[in-house]
This record gives sequence, C-alpha cells and structure tokens, in this order.
Amino acid sequence: MAKNRQWHLTSRPTGELSAGNFELRESAIPEPGNKQFLIRTIYLSLDPTHRLWAREKASYMPSVKLGDVMRGFTMGVVEKSNHPGYPVGAIVTGVFGWEDYSISDGSGIVALVDMDPRLPLTARFGLFEHIGLAAYFGILDILHPKPGETMVVSGAAGAVGSIAVQIGKIMSCRVVAVAGSDEKCAWLKDELGADAAVNYKKGSLKASLRAACPKGVDTFFDNVGGECLEAVLDLINMKARIAMCGAISQYGNDEKPYAPPNIYNLLNKRAKLEGFIVLDYAADQRWWAKAHDDMTQWHIQGRMKYRIETVDGLENAPQAVTKLFQGTNTGKLLVKVSDEPPASARL
Amino acid sequence: MAKNRQWHLTSRPTGELSAGNFELRESAIPEPGNKQFLIRTIYLSLDPTHRLWAREKASYMPSVKLGDVMRGFTMGVVEKSNHPGYPVGAIVTGVFGWEDYSISDGSGIVALVDMDPRLPLTARFGLFEHIGLAAYFGILDILHPKPGETMVVSGAAGAVGSIAVQIGKIMSCRVVAVAGSDEKCAWLKDELGADAAVNYKKGSLKASLRAACPKGVDTFFDNVGGECLEAVLDLINMKARIAMCGAISQYGNDEKPYAPPNIYNLLNKRAKLEGFIVLDYAADQRWWAKAHDDMTQWHIQGRMKYRIETVDGLENAPQAVTKLFQGTNTGKLLVKVSDEPPASARL
Repeated sequence: MAKNRQWHLTSRPTGELSAGNFELRESAIPEPGNKQFLIRTIYLSLDPTHRLWAREKASYMPSVKLGDVMRGFTMGVVEKSNHPGYPVGAIVTGVFGWEDYSISDGSGIVALVDMDPRLPLTARFGLFEHIGLAAYFGILDILHPKPGETMVVSGAAGAVGSIAVQIGKIMSCRVVAVAGSDEKCAWLKDELGADAAVNYKKGSLKASLRAACPKGVDTFFDNVGGECLEAVLDLINMKARIAMCGAISQYGNDEKPYAPPNIYNLLNKRAKLEGFIVLDYAADQRWWAKAHDDMTQWHIQGRMKYRIETVDGLENAPQAVTKLFQGTNTGKLLVKVSDEPPASARL
Repeated sequence: MAKNRQWHLTSRPTGELSAGNFELRESAIPEPGNKQFLIRTIYLSLDPTHRLWAREKASYMPSVKLGDVMRGFTMGVVEKSNHPGYPVGAIVTGVFGWEDYSISDGSGIVALVDMDPRLPLTARFGLFEHIGLAAYFGILDILHPKPGETMVVSGAAGAVGSIAVQIGKIMSCRVVAVAGSDEKCAWLKDELGADAAVNYKKGSLKASLRAACPKGVDTFFDNVGGECLEAVLDLINMKARIAMCGAISQYGNDEKPYAPPNIYNLLNKRAKLEGFIVLDYAADQRWWAKAHDDMTQWHIQGRMKYRIETVDGLENAPQAVTKLFQGTNTGKLLVKVSDEPPASARL
C-alpha cells in the first residue's frame, strides 16, 4: 500500500545545505477533510531559498521548524477533493512540502495551473511562478530599464537569472551576464543573447566586469550579493537601480554575511538598492496576469528560452539541492516525484 | 591694503580632517572680468561633506586637488560686478572656497538670496540650501512617510538631522532621534518634538533603538551609516525606506568603510536603501521653490526651529571644522568671514 514519504528537516545547516540535514519518514497518505483536497506531488522545485528556510532565523518567511517537513514549491494533481474549486484532475502549484502527498484547503499560496496548452507542465517552473516572474517583476517594478542602458545580471545561468538576461534584451538593454563557468557564459551569449558574459571564477571579477561594462552599470539584477554586488557597486552610474532578488553567495554565512564596504557608493551615485519577493506581486491580479501573458508570448515568439534539469525520485531531493550551491545545475532544478497525468486526464 | 586670504588643501586627511591639512595663503583680491562679479564672503558653511571632498577619491563631486583652495558652500555680497544678473549689493550663495573673496560668472551652483525679509541671513543655512532642503527632499522624495509610521533620524542633533526630525513630526510620524549626548537628546525631545531620542554613545545602540521603536522602523533618514545603519536594518518593517543622506561615521575610513552585514535584510523586508544629493533637486525649479515656501511657512508658524553656531574669522575655519566630526557643535556651523551688509544696503 502506498505511503506518504516526507523529508523532514532534522538539523540546521552550518555552511551549505547537505543531505545530512534531512531525514525521510513515511506515514499514511492523509485523507482530505471538509473543504480540503489531496494533492499528489508531480514536481518539487529545488531553490536556493531552501537554504534560508532551513536556518534558525526567519528570512522573508518563517523558518522551517526542526523536525517539520521541509517546505518547497511543488506542482501536483488533485487526487481526492472535498473542495469545489479544486476538482480531481486539476493541476495546482503551491508552497507545500518535500513529500509525495499534500493536503490543502486552497488557502495560502495555491494556484490552479491554466497555462497555454502548448507549453509542457514543467514550463510552469521555467517561465512562471517564483522563477520567471521574479525576473519579470524585479526588472519591471524595481529596475525600470531604459533602452540602451547597461544591465548586469548575476547568477545569470541560474533559473531566475537566465530569464532576467532575456527580459533585459527584450527591454533593449545591453546585458552583461555573470556566471560561474565558461560553458555557462557561452550559453548566455550564444543562446540567450547576452552582450557580454563574465566568468566570476576566472581572474578578477572587478576587472572583468569593468571591461565588460565600458559605460558603467545602470541596472543590476542581483541573485548573488557579496563580492559580486561589491564589484557592481564600483561601476554604477548616476541614478542606478539594483534589485536584490537573492544573495546566494551569503546564504551559508549566517553568522556574518559579507557586506560590500562600497555600499556608500549608493550615496555618491544617488542610486538605490531594493529587495523584493516575487510572491508579493500575486496580490496584484491584473499585473500578475499580464506577466503570464507577456512571458507566454515571448516564449512562443522564440524570445524567451528556459532549461529544466530533472532529477528523478523524491528520495534524491537532499542530494540534488546541493547542486544549486555548487553551481553544477544547468537550468531550473526539479525533482520528478511522480508521473504527469496524461493530457487527456487533466482538467 | 586688503588681501584675499584662502585656505588651501595641502595634504589628504588620514582619519579625520585636521587643521594640518590646510594652509592659509594670501593673494591680491581678484578683479572680475567680463560677465563676472566679485563676491565678498560673509559666511562659510562648514559641513561633514568637506571630509569627502578632501579625500583622494571622488565622491558625489570631484575631490579638491592638493594645493587648490578648499571648496565650501558660502554666502556673500556682490562688491563689484560686470554681470547684469548679479548687481553690487546682491546677496548670493554658492559653492565657492574657504576664502575672503570669490569670482563668479553665475554658472554652477549660485543662487541669489531672496528669502522672506523677516528671516536673518543665517537662516539661509539653517533652513534652506544644502541643509534644510536635504532633509526636505530626502523625506518627501525618498522616504514618503505616512502618518503614524515610525521614522528614525540619525545625526539628529546635526544641522540636517534636526530639520529632518521636525519634518517627520510635520508629516505626523512617530520620530525617533539618534544623537550623541544626553543634552542633545533632551533638546530633540523637549524643543524639537521627537517622540524618543537615543544616545548612541550610551549602552547598546541596538537595544536602545529596539526599545524606542516597539513597532519597528518604517523610514530612516540616515546621516551616519555604519553601525547606526546596522542597528536600524535589524528593525525595519516590510517595505521600509531608507534615505542615505550621508555616512559621517565612515568618512574617516577611506580604506575600508564598515558596511552593515545585515544589509540583506533589505531582501527579507522588501525594503530600499537609496542615496540622494540635495543639489540635484535644484534642477526642478517648481519643487525647489515649493520647498522654500514650505520651510518658510513652517518656520514662521513656529513648527520649524534651527540653531546656528558661528565661529568668527576665516582664520579659524580648519580648527572649527573638526567639531563636526567630534560632534561638539550645536547647530549649523558657520564661519563668519566678514560683516553682513546693513539691511538697507542689500538688494
């Protein structure tokens, strides 16, 4: 008989997240109560933000308590339902757990997936949700890029970064991508259209970035923080805008993150540094829908690519998540937890 | 025969500015050329920003070159003129030098003083110019405070900070002032209306500030940077706004300024940190004029106080400027270089 496997967070990471921080436990598949429904997980999204959720101190969300099921963005199919809004066969995404089955009453962060049927289900995590839409809102709401400006994107080969690079090009910016290998840099230039790409693991990032940005930096979509933010702060132009989407370089430094000593250059350049969380934008339904439309159109027009890297089996999630911090994933990292329902069975 | 005394910057400061960085030299009073006019300095404004101008590296303006006359905001009276826009007797302010006499053609940062005649000339530096207007635009353009929000002001007993405290009250905020002595704190509360005042030299700033801000911090007008910025970043609320007006605590740390390691809290709280320079706002003539009107009205209504501390004699400027970095001045620090013309002689 089927069980519900769940990865519990059993210790706090020191440094990077590791498989040893988790423990797999099995229990009976829960029964949905009144106005609830049961979701069978199809995909579990693995994200740098898991490191923040695993630490003791709250970040933009409360931390996962020790012993609790690890939190994750998932996509699944409704298998049993006592909720008229979420019938059996519906595909939903939401913030649930690293688990085979989840129970929901539709409250919190849950969305029915109603993508353009030409797109595969995995596109949901390549182009939309907390990935593509983070790039979209960070750029459109925080950076306000103007044609011809220089936009730098860090973590540019990552799931969010690679979308940001392409939105930068759609906004007619000169886009400079920062990534961690020559292969990634080549992909960013040759496939995604970045005007220049800098391998931060090779030579001096400050010098390479300076060479790649002869007219300085007007906007910066930052996924990395730390020394990468420092290198960009040295190059910002007057009235530059920096969107802080993440700070993956510092997620392992809970005790004393590295802050750029040249942060005061924001004053010299009348510039701003602003943090944002994509989930906040869901409250603006019109803009949220517009973002989905824009991303869908850009993709169908061939101007917006994405890569998915799938790891099979929930049992492999803790090993797989470490790829994000080692930079060895190539594309949006998903764990395939169970099979997609055939298209004919979907609602 | 009268001479033009000028303070030259002859060495770069290491740490604080000191009198030894300057040398007084005398030369003939210059003659204004075609379309030029001669200004006799009445007041020289001494400002923390002088430390930035004296260093090797450019800040928001180019540095003063070694050997050049030290730059300063001054107020003076036109004594000779070949420029129809600036007749003899006109009172002007601008960015000139630590000197008895300056030559101008009206270009750059030069303004005719046309204050409400009920105000003394020194009010120009107490309420307007780079002082009061820095507080005005930082709060109205960057912070956008809402009634009932908590606003923190650092360097609150300083010239700019004390105006910011009062604008915060006019905007119906709960204002928490950070200053460097119990006397300053008492003045901020009893005279300027701050709801709470924290002496950062006494006990733990983080703990005191936390106690003074039970509902967290929504906006922060920062003149100080460093550990004060760090203490506030720990307390910011969702969508908090921080206006970086200055960073006096770090002006002596040219090599390695102290950046708050909790800068990433901007991400958790979807908050922004933005630098600004008041001089930029002069380009928007309507808003600039509105600022003068508002400040004048608030002052006449008794809602906007200022203090001036005058040091007599240009020869004392280098000694006097050190007060700013020791926090021993009480009010806007001016050097009285020569006598004000009688009101009847002013244009």
